[in-house]
Amino acid sequence: MSVSRERWSSDFSRWFDWVIEEAEIYDYGRYPVKGMGVWMPFGFQIRRRIIDIIRELHDSRGHEEVLFPILIPETLLRKESEHIRGFEGEVYWVTHGGLEPLDIKLALRPTSETNITYYESLWIKSYKQLPKKYYQIVSVFRYETKATRPMIRVREITTFKEAHTVHASFSDAERQVLEAIEIYKNLFDKLGIPYIISRRPEWDKFAGALYTIAFDTLMPDSRVMQIGTAHHLGQNFTKVFDFKIQLADGSLDYPWQTSYGVSDRVVASLISVHGDDRGLVLPSIIAPIQVIIIPIPIGLEEEKKTILEEARRIADLLKSSGFRVRVDDREELRPGAKYYYWEVRGVPIRIDIGPEEVKSRVYTVVRRDTLEKYKVSEDKLISELKAIIEDIDSHLSRRAWQSMKSAIKRVRTLKELEEWAKYKRGIVEVPWCGKEECAHRVEETLEVKTLGTPWPEERAEGEYCPICGLKAVTWARYAKTY
Amino acid sequence: MSVSRERWSSDFSRWFDWVIEEAEIYDYGRYPVKGMGVWMPFGFQIRRRIIDIIRELHDSRGHEEVLFPILIPETLLRKESEHIRGFEGEVYWVTHGGLEPLDIKLALRPTSETNITYYESLWIKSYKQLPKKYYQIVSVFRYETKATRPMIRVREITTFKEAHTVHASFSDAERQVLEAIEIYKNLFDKLGIPYIISRRPEWDKFAGALYTIAFDTLMPDSRVMQIGTAHHLGQNFTKVFDFKIQLADGSLDYPWQTSYGVSDRVVASLISVHGDDRGLVLPSIIAPIQVIIIPIPIGLEEEKKTILEEARRIADLLKSSGFRVRVDDREELRPGAKYYYWEVRGVPIRIDIGPEEVKSRVYTVVRRDTLEKYKVSEDKLISELKAIIEDIDSHLSRRAWQSMKSAIKRVRTLKELEEWAKYKRGIVEVPWCGKEECAHRVEETLEVKTLGTPWPEERAEGEYCPICGLKAVTWARYAKTY
Repeated sequence: MSVSRERWSSDFSRWFDWVIEEAEIYDYGRYPVKGMGVWMPFGFQIRRRIIDIIRELHDSRGHEEVLFPILIPETLLRKESEHIRGFEGEVYWVTHGGLEPLDIKLALRPTSETNITYYESLWIKSYKQLPKKYYQIVSVFRYETKATRPMIRVREITTFKEAHTVHASFSDAERQVLEAIEIYKNLFDKLGIPYIISRRPEWDKFAGALYTIAFDTLMPDSRVMQIGTAHHLGQNFTKVFDFKIQLADGSLDYPWQTSYGVSDRVVASLISVHGDDRGLVLPSIIAPIQVIIIPIPIGLEEEKKTILEEARRIADLLKSSGFRVRVDDREELRPGAKYYYWEVRGVPIRIDIGPEEVKSRVYTVVRRDTLEKYKVSEDKLISELKAIIEDIDSHLSRRAWQSMKSAIKRVRTLKELEEWAKYKRGIVEVPWCGKEECAHRVEETLEVKTLGTPWPEERAEGEYCPICGLKAVTWARYAKTY
Repeated sequence: MSVSRERWSSDFSRWFDWVIEEAEIYDYGRYPVKGMGVWMPFGFQIRRRIIDIIRELHDSRGHEEVLFPILIPETLLRKESEHIRGFEGEVYWVTHGGLEPLDIKLALRPTSETNITYYESLWIKSYKQLPKKYYQIVSVFRYETKATRPMIRVREITTFKEAHTVHASFSDAERQVLEAIEIYKNLFDKLGIPYIISRRPEWDKFAGALYTIAFDTLMPDSRVMQIGTAHHLGQNFTKVFDFKIQLADGSLDYPWQTSYGVSDRVVASLISVHGDDRGLVLPSIIAPIQVIIIPIPIGLEEEKKTILEEARRIADLLKSSGFRVRVDDREELRPGAKYYYWEVRGVPIRIDIGPEEVKSRVYTVVRRDTLEKYKVSEDKLISELKAIIEDIDSHLSRRAWQSMKSAIKRVRTLKELEEWAKYKRGIVEVPWCGKEECAHRVEETLEVKTLGTPWPEERAEGEYCPICGLKAVTWARYAKTY
């Protein structure tokens, strides 16, 4: 048995707008500034739990949390010329303080490479201090000219985790990119979010980076969304800030940097990949409430009181075993309305307690992902709930991974490419000679974007580029993207 | 025995700048934008622990955490005219997105009453939803024209906890102000920060409020610093946003609001009231590290190894009892340098482990606040450390409270006032007739600011205003302020 995911996939954009409103996650589209929204209490709790996981993953690997100024003076932002070119059209500028014009325009940070490198150059003098790994979780700003979408393409990105690291050599920085990838794999695995990892093509790497490794996931509308990136920055920023350190051999040189980030899109993808037509479906690690208990008030006042007491007793029992539980004792709502209310909010498990349950001490347990019902006696309640929750989490992850994997196709010829173009669902992998123009031809023909080449690198032995006919060196991935 | 607090109090401003740099708390004054600084890793951990306490205090009393946009359009900010008048000179304005001028100027939030009230008017329709208590912890911005000071008077206030509540009646909102006061008492008590609570005079209340209750503390330079405020907003904001709700009797009316906030100044006051000439002194609840273990490496390599192993064994022992412990095993530093390093960072307890300790299993324990040394055997280590930590915390709080209380003076006559004016140390309370002009006269004569009247209210029976000679109705408090 499983719950319909028809509307969820066939009309995803409307489903998403509906679910974030109905589950009171994010109030979007009513603010007088386009592209900005409000994290409502329930949504904020989901966001907070994700932030806690992100913190833990970074702290446990020696990253240190810091907080840098939100305003970056134009002079600082312009130091690295490729960098500013990458952001110039999208920067919000503060030009006045009170009624006075400012001497120097201040940018609302689009990202923090420039001001962090500035401080690193003050703090770090020797290879002995390295590696240094900083991170901060902050708002960043993009004056988006494309159509905005809640959490996905916004002008204030409110949950931007940016990590910035410094190393004594190119290869140390390269190893740090690998650690970043491990951290993000871990993060997305905990959330059951499937991903493919690609090395972005040269023309789509981060402004100022040597190369960019990106995590993408598949959304229910078959488009691909970037959910995380890691950049090897080389010495680009350290050079322009004249940031040198003493190396082990006593010489002075520019250190090497990486940066990596995830954003509100982690929340957006969590909501999107697991949801169904009834609303959110949350993995237990994230669910603000894991078990909701609904008293079914039948009979006389006295009986109703007994039922409520039983509900509270069971709640206390579960709490003492570490579950996050709530009893929905609102008198003004009928059970059906409560079912709806908690289903849309994705609570993993519901327990109904009526007169029969009070007598028999056998409870009705409903799981959110499949809506399957179980009868569980009190003595087995804790162990059964643990097993069901575990099963929900692995089911969600498995289902999402299957869904993404089944949408990845390899094609080898122009004919197959044209065939694929008819439905354009998911991700297509094509042998690639490595020439930019061939990739652009595919992009134009299929109306897709290049995701890049598989990471870890994958050779395409014996394959030929379907555009130019030359020997392929690797596969290139394409998809419709957000 | 106690540690010198001479430099700390006699040259406080330089001490503060020194300690936040030396303990790597906050890098201030090197950024190309005046009034903005960086929370460094150690400082960030202190800040994070304070935020955790603030969250817990609000969550446990039914407050819901949310996140509102940082940019407030001019049209929204101007809705409440007194409010904007209070902030107009201090607002940072965003006027450009990319290279284009924006249609409507956007303010970097100085505080969020306006945009929060806007959303409340969309979300709340009935008295049944009340009380509603929201809070957020965010950066707010003030284009300060006065001299800036790290954490104390900055242009980006990075740790602004603002709570915003909605109520069905004036008196419900008034009760909420009382809850806010309880929360802040609790917060400052946990941190050992002394406070006096005053009702600010009419001319110094929050822009748009009916009245403002403020928490002040005494800083080592005998100036008073505001560390928290709570405002009864009446219906001022709900009226201008035409925000009406249905009341219990079926009628429609504007609801009542409060707001209350604390800022980076909580961290600044924590550092300031407890510090001494050797640096920070942290209460255990806040200390990122509560016990630092210093191996004293004497003798041969083999012996050094044994000492280090013993240090790690003791660290594990303490960790398993819930202490936050670290072994300083850095080889490049001598013990003396390590003492200095951790003293300036305020770690409550230091344990030295050398060859003798390894043999006897009796350890040398040093407390940071008094530098007293104890010899403690292993079997008593846990219980003794707990007792010492408790004693440190209560000693810090007691010392800070005594210091503040001894600086509050009551004077009744002009002559006494003039006497007080000679040294102007601390807070002076003067009988007050209630007339603004008399308060201003005191302010001008003494070169002080009015803090307001005692909260809870205190009548001044049988006293006379030393300025006009009329009967006093209450006491008024004055001090040199930040």
